[in-house]
Order: sequence, then structure tokens, then C-alpha cells
Amino acid sequence: MAVDDSAKRNAIRATVQSYVDAVGATDPDAVLALFAPGATVEDPVGTEPHRGINDIAAFYAKSASYRNESELLDCLISGDSAAFRFRITTTLPERTVEVTPIDVMTVDDDARITSMRAFWHTSDYRVVRPR
Amino acid sequence: MAVDDSAKRNAIRATVQSYVDAVGATDPDAVLALFAPGATVEDPVGTEPHRGINDIAAFYAKSASYRNESELLDCLISGDSAAFRFRITTTLPERTVEVTPIDVMTVDDDARITSMRAFWHTSDYRVVRPR
Repeated sequence: MAVDDSAKRNAIRATVQSYVDAVGATDPDAVLALFAPGATVEDPVGTEPHRGINDIAAFYAKSASYRNESELLDCLISGDSAAFRFRITTTLPERTVEVTPIDVMTVDDDARITSMRAFWHTSDYRVVRPR
Repeated sequence: MAVDDSAKRNAIRATVQSYVDAVGATDPDAVLALFAPGATVEDPVGTEPHRGINDIAAFYAKSASYRNESELLDCLISGDSAAFRFRITTTLPERTVEVTPIDVMTVDDDARITSMRAFWHTSDYRVVRPR
């Protein structure tokens, strides 16, 4: 491609990294700040999407009581979209579980998230530390 | 989830593995046999999709003169969709190159591919063996 799109790609990559970091820090406000007003979240893919910041806020608030750790493993950027794989480790009262989803995001011109779709299934979770 | 969807999930996983194997074998007929008649292919994401078997056949025929190797690395299945990461190594006349895209597929009730979207960028290619 002749067009130098590296600035845009860097901005998208920064949004993805910020998202994974904010999820790992269990910081719903930091997560929400990354979304555009009319955004949608489909998590997992195949379920009814959450539409708009209020619904998205309620969705992320549900997991806000757990301690998480996260790591971005792979990130592919294509046009206005990113597909990325990350590990999230969650400490629940009775055990610690881990899952490695692939998420797909679209972003607007300011690299704010306009849609997020998360690919995973309950059977992808594995227990890494029983209490 | 109460519903046992493991048969459907296994069928989707088999389609993904067959796709990666057929791409690695540089076998356009085997690739095409996996698609439903009205399918679309957007490769890379952000470019105009190829629509229908004839357009998709023309697209895969373009790479049919190269020798490829492929390996499925990760596969997440969510509803009727799969997101998967795979390595593809292509031997060109002057060098061997490698890329590790993430693809997203939707499938129909017979696990035939109804859409494929490939996330990668020219800058993701790396030369593994110069001639």
C-alpha cells in the first residue's frame, strides 16, 4: 500500500493496549473512556449486544469486584479494525481462572472504540489455581 | 450455558482446520468446497469483499502458484462464529515470507463458511529465508 497509515495504526494499537490494561486493572472508568458514545459490545459473540455507554457501563461494572491480570499477546490491525488475542486471569472467591479470548474492535477517526466483539466460550476457561 | 453445543462447535472447528490445511496445501478446490454459495471474503479487512463463489474462486486462484505451509495456532468459537490465528509460510521466487493473521468466520447450519474476514497488514509479513 502506498499510503503511510502508520500513525493511524499506532493509534489503534494504543487503544487496544489501553483496553487490555484497563480490563486487567479492573478499572471500569478507564475501560469506558475508550468507547465512542454510540458503541456496541457483543461479549461473547452470538449474544445480544450492549448498545451505548450506559449499557456498556453496566456490563463492565458486573466484573468490577474481581481482581484481574491481563496481557496482550497478539494484535493484528486491518483498516479501521483490530483483532487481538489476550490472556485474562481472574481471581474469584473460590479459584483463579484464565481465558485467552480473541476480540475484534472497530474504531472511529479518534481511535475510540465503536464496536467490540469477544470470541470465547465457557469451555475455554481453565482453572489455574484452586483455592 | 445449559445447551450442549459441543457437536456444533466441533463442526465449526473442523471447518476452520480444513480451511487452514487447504490454504497450506495450496489447494484452491479444497478451499472453495468449504464455502456456502453466497459467501463473502474480505481479505484483508478494510478492502472490498469478494462476493459469491466465482469471485472467491478468482481470489484464491491468484495465490495458487506459490508453495505454502500453514499451522492453526489458536481457535476460539463463539456462537456461529470462529476467530482463529494461524501461521502461513509462503515460498516466493526470491524469498520465503511468513505472516500470522487472525481470521474471523461465520458458518451456516452445515458448518459451511458464509463469511471470512482476514486481519493482517503488509507490515506484518516477515522474511524468514532470503534466497
